[in-house]
Amino acid sequence: MSHARYDFASDNTAPAAPEALEALAAANTGFTSGYGTDPVSAKAADLVREMLDADAEVRFVASGTAANAVALAALCRPFEAVLAHEHAHVCTDETGAPGFFGQGLGLIRLPGASGRIDPAALEQPLSAPDVSYRQPAAALSLTNATEYGTVYSAHELRALIAPVKAKGYGVHLDGARLANAAAAGFDLKAIKELGVDILVVGGTKAGMPPTEAIVIFDRALARRFDARLKQAGQLPSKGRFYAAPFIGMLGSGAFLRHAAHANAMARRLAELMPFPVVHPVEANAVFVEMDDAALSRLHAAGWFAYRFLDGSVRFMCSWATTGESVEQLAVTLRDLA
Amino acid sequence: MSHARYDFASDNTAPAAPEALEALAAANTGFTSGYGTDPVSAKAADLVREMLDADAEVRFVASGTAANAVALAALCRPFEAVLAHEHAHVCTDETGAPGFFGQGLGLIRLPGASGRIDPAALEQPLSAPDVSYRQPAAALSLTNATEYGTVYSAHELRALIAPVKAKGYGVHLDGARLANAAAAGFDLKAIKELGVDILVVGGTKAGMPPTEAIVIFDRALARRFDARLKQAGQLPSKGRFYAAPFIGMLGSGAFLRHAAHANAMARRLAELMPFPVVHPVEANAVFVEMDDAALSRLHAAGWFAYRFLDGSVRFMCSWATTGESVEQLAVTLRDLA
Amino acid sequence: MSHARYDFASDNTAPAAPEALEALAAANTGFTSGYGTDPVSAKAADLVREMLDADAEVRFVASGTAANAVALAALCRPFEAVLAHEHAHVCTDETGAPGFFGQGLGLIRLPGASGRIDPAALEQPLSAPDVSYRQPAAALSLTNATEYGTVYSAHELRALIAPVKAKGYGVHLDGARLANAAAAGFDLKAIKELGVDILVVGGTKAGMPPTEAIVIFDRALARRFDARLKQAGQLPSKGRFYAAPFIGMLGSGAFLRHAAHANAMARRLAELMPFPVVHPVEANAVFVEMDDAALSRLHAAGWFAYRFLDGSVRFMCSWATTGESVEQLAVTLRDLA
Amino acid sequence: MSHARYDFASDNTAPAAPEALEALAAANTGFTSGYGTDPVSAKAADLVREMLDADAEVRFVASGTAANAVALAALCRPFEAVLAHEHAHVCTDETGAPGFFGQGLGLIRLPGASGRIDPAALEQPLSAPDVSYRQPAAALSLTNATEYGTVYSAHELRALIAPVKAKGYGVHLDGARLANAAAAGFDLKAIKELGVDILVVGGTKAGMPPTEAIVIFDRALARRFDARLKQAGQLPSKGRFYAAPFIGMLGSGAFLRHAAHANAMARRLAELMPFPVVHPVEANAVFVEMDDAALSRLHAAGWFAYRFLDGSVRFMCSWATTGESVEQLAVTLRDLA
Repeated sequence: MSHARYDFASDNTAPAAPEALEALAAANTGFTSGYGTDPVSAKAADLVREMLDADAEVRFVASGTAANAVALAALCRPFEAVLAHEHAHVCTDETGAPGFFGQGLGLIRLPGASGRIDPAALEQPLSAPDVSYRQPAAALSLTNATEYGTVYSAHELRALIAPVKAKGYGVHLDGARLANAAAAGFDLKAIKELGVDILVVGGTKAGMPPTEAIVIFDRALARRFDARLKQAGQLPSKGRFYAAPFIGMLGSGAFLRHAAHANAMARRLAELMPFPVVHPVEANAVFVEMDDAALSRLHAAGWFAYRFLDGSVRFMCSWATTGESVEQLAVTLRDLA
Repeated sequence: MSHARYDFASDNTAPAAPEALEALAAANTGFTSGYGTDPVSAKAADLVREMLDADAEVRFVASGTAANAVALAALCRPFEAVLAHEHAHVCTDETGAPGFFGQGLGLIRLPGASGRIDPAALEQPLSAPDVSYRQPAAALSLTNATEYGTVYSAHELRALIAPVKAKGYGVHLDGARLANAAAAGFDLKAIKELGVDILVVGGTKAGMPPTEAIVIFDRALARRFDARLKQAGQLPSKGRFYAAPFIGMLGSGAFLRHAAHANAMARRLAELMPFPVVHPVEANAVFVEMDDAALSRLHAAGWFAYRFLDGSVRFMCSWATTGESVEQLAVTLRDLA
Repeated sequence: MSHARYDFASDNTAPAAPEALEALAAANTGFTSGYGTDPVSAKAADLVREMLDADAEVRFVASGTAANAVALAALCRPFEAVLAHEHAHVCTDETGAPGFFGQGLGLIRLPGASGRIDPAALEQPLSAPDVSYRQPAAALSLTNATEYGTVYSAHELRALIAPVKAKGYGVHLDGARLANAAAAGFDLKAIKELGVDILVVGGTKAGMPPTEAIVIFDRALARRFDARLKQAGQLPSKGRFYAAPFIGMLGSGAFLRHAAHANAMARRLAELMPFPVVHPVEANAVFVEMDDAALSRLHAAGWFAYRFLDGSVRFMCSWATTGESVEQLAVTLRDLA
Repeated sequence: MSHARYDFASDNTAPAAPEALEALAAANTGFTSGYGTDPVSAKAADLVREMLDADAEVRFVASGTAANAVALAALCRPFEAVLAHEHAHVCTDETGAPGFFGQGLGLIRLPGASGRIDPAALEQPLSAPDVSYRQPAAALSLTNATEYGTVYSAHELRALIAPVKAKGYGVHLDGARLANAAAAGFDLKAIKELGVDILVVGGTKAGMPPTEAIVIFDRALARRFDARLKQAGQLPSKGRFYAAPFIGMLGSGAFLRHAAHANAMARRLAELMPFPVVHPVEANAVFVEMDDAALSRLHAAGWFAYRFLDGSVRFMCSWATTGESVEQLAVTLRDLA
C-alpha cells in the first residue's frame, strides 16, 4: 500500500494557507488586551464587515460546530425547533451539538435535492398550528455552499427565507464553505439583504488554522454575546489568534482566490472522473456513485474518501489541492473503475 | 497618557512564544487526518504523557474554560456539585460554564487562604448526609498554581484529595498555570499518584497560542470522549494546530523554562513593589494592597491591572515579561505609592 | 352540533377511577413526612414490587413525559443516543423532553410495523463503529403496549433487548399503557428477567389521577435518584397523593380489571367499525383508515378523534368507556362511512 | 418515644383541605379535553385572575420547584443570572433546579434580614458593568411570604422591583406561601401593578393536593408556554386535577381562611414559645434559637422540626394545625427549655 493520502478526504485535512499563518505570526507581537478586545480582532472584524458590506457584530471563535450551535441556541428556545436540510452538518455531523448548546432544541429535517432545501418542504412546518406536544419551528438553518457541493443563489435563498421571516422566525447561515460559494458566484454583499440573522463564515475549511467568524446581523441578538460565548467555551483570551488569519486571507484576497482554486480543482476532478458524478459540481466537492468493492480498492491504494449520507462517495478539494494530485487520483480511479 | 501597557494585566495578554509558533509552522505541512487522529496530535500526547510519566488519554482543545467545564461535566451529574475554592476560576471567571456544560451542576464554594482550599472546609460537605433538596458533592476541583499565585505541594494536594477519593468522588485539576507550579517545584510526575482523574494542562497562559491539554487519568472516563468533545465544540478538525504548540514547548523544555522566567519576574516585581504584597509570591503573580486612587493613577499612567476578588490588585507575569518592564512598572508604582 | 364527546380522543380524557380516588381520600389523613418518605408511598411501592415480583426501587411522579425523560437521562449521556421506535411517544409527543432533560441526548428513530421495533433495524446502529461526530447508541427505549395499540410479547422484547444488553447499553420501558399490555396477556412478572433497567408504570392512562411509577431495576441507577427527581421538579413534597392511587388500583385488582375493560371496549369497537382497521387491536386502541372528509364529519358530529402519525385515525378506549358510547360512536361512524 | 409528629415539620406535611379534595372529586366526572384545555382549568384560571384582579395567563402545574425553575428559565438566558435572597428556596432547597431548567443560569445571592432582600444589596449587581466572564443579572426572584415567615409589604416590593425594572430585567415572585402573605395583609390585587412578570401561587402549602398556579402577567412571556411546560414535564394531560383544588379553595374563600388560621396558629405558638423567637412572626412560621441538645430531646419526644439555614429551628403551621397540637408542642418545649 502506498503512503496515506488525505488530499481529498475533506477540506480540513489541508494545512493552513501561508497568508493565514503569516498574518498570525505578524499579529504575534507585544502585549494586548484579551477576549477579543484587541486591535487585531477589531481589524479582522472590519474586514469581515467590508467583505459583507454590512454593519454587523463580528466574533471569532475556534469551532464551526460551536459557532453553529451557539447561533441556533440564540435563535431558538429549547422547546422550539430549527428547520434544516436533513443532511445539513448541524443535523448529521455535529454529535447533536445544537441540542447540547440549545438544551434540547429540536431539528426538523427537510428534504431537497443535492443539499438544497426543497422550498415546498417548508410549507407544512410553517403552516402547522402550534401544539403543546411538538417543538414548533422558530428558525431556519441554511448552508452555502451546501454539504453536496452545490451553491444556493441569492434568489433561491430569498425564496426559502421569505416565508420564514414572515412568521417572525430567525435565520442562520452556515458558511463553513462560504468562500467556495462566493468563488462560485454567490454575492457575499447580498447576504445582509436576505434576512440572515446570524452567519458563520468558515475560516478553517477556507484554509486557515481553526477559526470561524460569527456575524450577527440582528444586533438585538448580539446583546451579551460575549458572555454567551465565554460560557460556551468560545471566547478565547488570546483572541488575536482567531482574528489574525482572517486579516491575512481577507486583506490579501486569498480567501476567494484559494476557494476559486479549490472549486477549479473539483471541476477538473469531475472532468477526469471515471465514476458517475451524482451532484452538480458547483463548489469544491465531487460526489460519485461507487460500489463498496471499488471504494475498498481506493482505500487499499492509500486514498481516503468517505461514503456520504446519500450513499455516494465524496471527494473534497481545498486551497492546497494540486493539479498533480487530481491527476494521480484520477489515474487511480480509472484503474479501479 | 502613555501607550497602553497590558504587560501585567494577565498572563494571556502576551504573544505566543517562538518555540510554540515554530512548531505550529513546522506542523503545517501536507494533508493529514482530522479530529485529533493525526501524527502531530499523537506526538504531542506522547510528550504530555512523558512529562507526567503517566499512561493517560490526552486531548487538545481550544479553551481552558471549556476544558474545565467538560471535565467537571464528566465527573458530576446535574444534580450533584463540585467542591472548589470560592475564588477558583471555575467559580468566578467562566460565566457559569460548569453549569452550562454540566446542565446545572452545582458549585460548593470553599474558603482557604491565598487560593488554597482549607482542608477543614471539606469536612462538612463530605460528611453531610445526602438530602434530596441539595446537590451533594461528587467531585473536587483544584487549581495549581492557584488563582492567587500560590502553589500547592503534592503533600497538600494529597491531604485534600484523600478524603474525597475515600467517598468515591472525582478529582479535577485545573492546570491553567501548571507550568508555573512546576517551575516553582511542584513535581508533575507526582500527579498520577495523587488521585487526579482529569487534569487540564494550560498551554495558553504558558505562552502558546490558544490550546489546552485535557489529560484523562481515569481511562473509564475517556469512553466516547471524542464525541463528548465534538458535541461541546471542542474537537477541532485541524487538531494539529492545538497539538503542535505543545510539541514546541515540551520538546524544547521551553514550557518549564518560560514558566520559571515568569515566576522570576514576579519575584523581582515583588522585591521592587512599594505596595504591600498580600499573598505569597510562589508562581507568576503579585497581589498587592492598593486603594482606588492609586489604581486610578496607575491606569492613567497606561498600565492595566485589575482589582481581584479579594480586593487586592493583581499583577501577572508571563514568559514575555521583561526585566525592563518590571522596572518601568516599579518606577511608576513608586511614584504612585 | 351535538355535545362535545372526548370519550375516544385519548385514554387520558377519562376521569379517575373510583378505586384511585377513594385511596387518595383515604390517604388524606394526618400529618406525614414529605418527599416520598411517608408510609403511603412505602406501601404503594411494595404493591408495585409485588405486581412485578421484583426487588426494585420505586418512585411516584406527576408526569409520564418527565418520568420517561428522567429515565433516558439516567441511561444516556448528552453525546449519546436512545434507540426508539420512530413513532414512540418519546420521539413524537413529548416536545423534545428527552433532549431537554438529557441536555441534547439524541434519538435514533427505528422503523417497525404497528409500533413494534423491527429487530433487524437494530443491527445497523448496534454494529456501527463509534465516530466522534455522531451520537452513538447507549440505550433502547421500548413501549408496551405500543403507540399503535399492539402488545409486545416477552419473547419479542427479549429479542430486542438481548443485543442491546450485549453491548452494555441500558433499557427503558415506557409502560404508560402497561396495564393494557398486562390485560392483553403480557406477564408483568417477566419484566425483571428481560433486562429492563428502568420501567415507567403508567397510572394516568390506567385510570388514576396524574401519577406514574418509576421502577428502577438496576439499583446502581437509583443512586441519588431523589436528588435527580427533585432537581427535575418531580419529587413532590406531598408524595402520598401520587402513591395513594396506586394503592387503590393495585390493591383492589382494578388496575388490570379496568385495563381489561378498556381492551374489551376496543375489540368491541373494532367489531362494529365500518372503516378499515389498520393495526392489530391488541390493547385499547383502534386505528382506522379514514379520509379527511369523513373525519371532518365525525368532528362535526361532536366526536373528537385524531389523525395519527401514520395517517390513520385513532380511537382510544379507557376504563371509563361504556359499551353504550361504543355503540353510539359506531352508529355515527356508519352514517359517515 | 411517642408517636412521630410531623405537625410542625413543614406546611407540606399536612393533608389536603376538604374544600380542595371535594372540588377534585366534583371535577372527576365525564370525559374532557386534555392538557389544560378543559373547562375546569378555565374556571380555575378565572378564579386566580379574579383573586389577583389581573388579566394574566394562568397554568396549573404539579411542582413548585418546577414552577419556579420554569419561570426563571423564561426570564433568564443561561449566561445570565437571577438575583435572589441567599436563603430563598430557589437558592437552597431545590437541588439546583433553576440551573437545570435554565441550563446553567446563575444565582446572585443577596443578603437581608429575616428573608427579605436588603434593597442596598441590589445596588452593586445592578450597577456593575457587564463583563464577559461573569453572568450578569437579568431577573429578580422574590418570595412572599419569605422563607423566614416574614411578609413583604407592597411598598417594600416596589422598592426592590423598581430598580430592576429600570434595567429592563424580569421579576419572578415565588408565592409558595402567598396565601399566608395575603392573610397577613399583603394585597394580592396589588401584585399586577408591582411589575411582577411571573408569579407562582402555591397550592400545596396552602392546603391543596400538589398543585401550583403559574401566573404570567407579561403576556409576551406566555408565547408557546404550553410547549415549554410540556417539554419540562409540567403539562399534565389530566389538567383538571391540578385546577380543581384551586376552584375549591378560591371559590369558597378557604384559601385565605385556612392561611389566616395557619398564621394564627404560628402567632399562638410564638406566644407560648419558651425559646427565643428570632424572626418576626408575620405568617405561618416560628423560628427559635435552640441548641442541639434541646433539639435532640425534641426529636426524641417524637416531634420533627428542622434546623434552618440561619441556624435557628423552624416550626411551621398549616391549615391543619390545631390549637391542641400547638399546646402539646408548647408543653413539650417547656419541658426541654
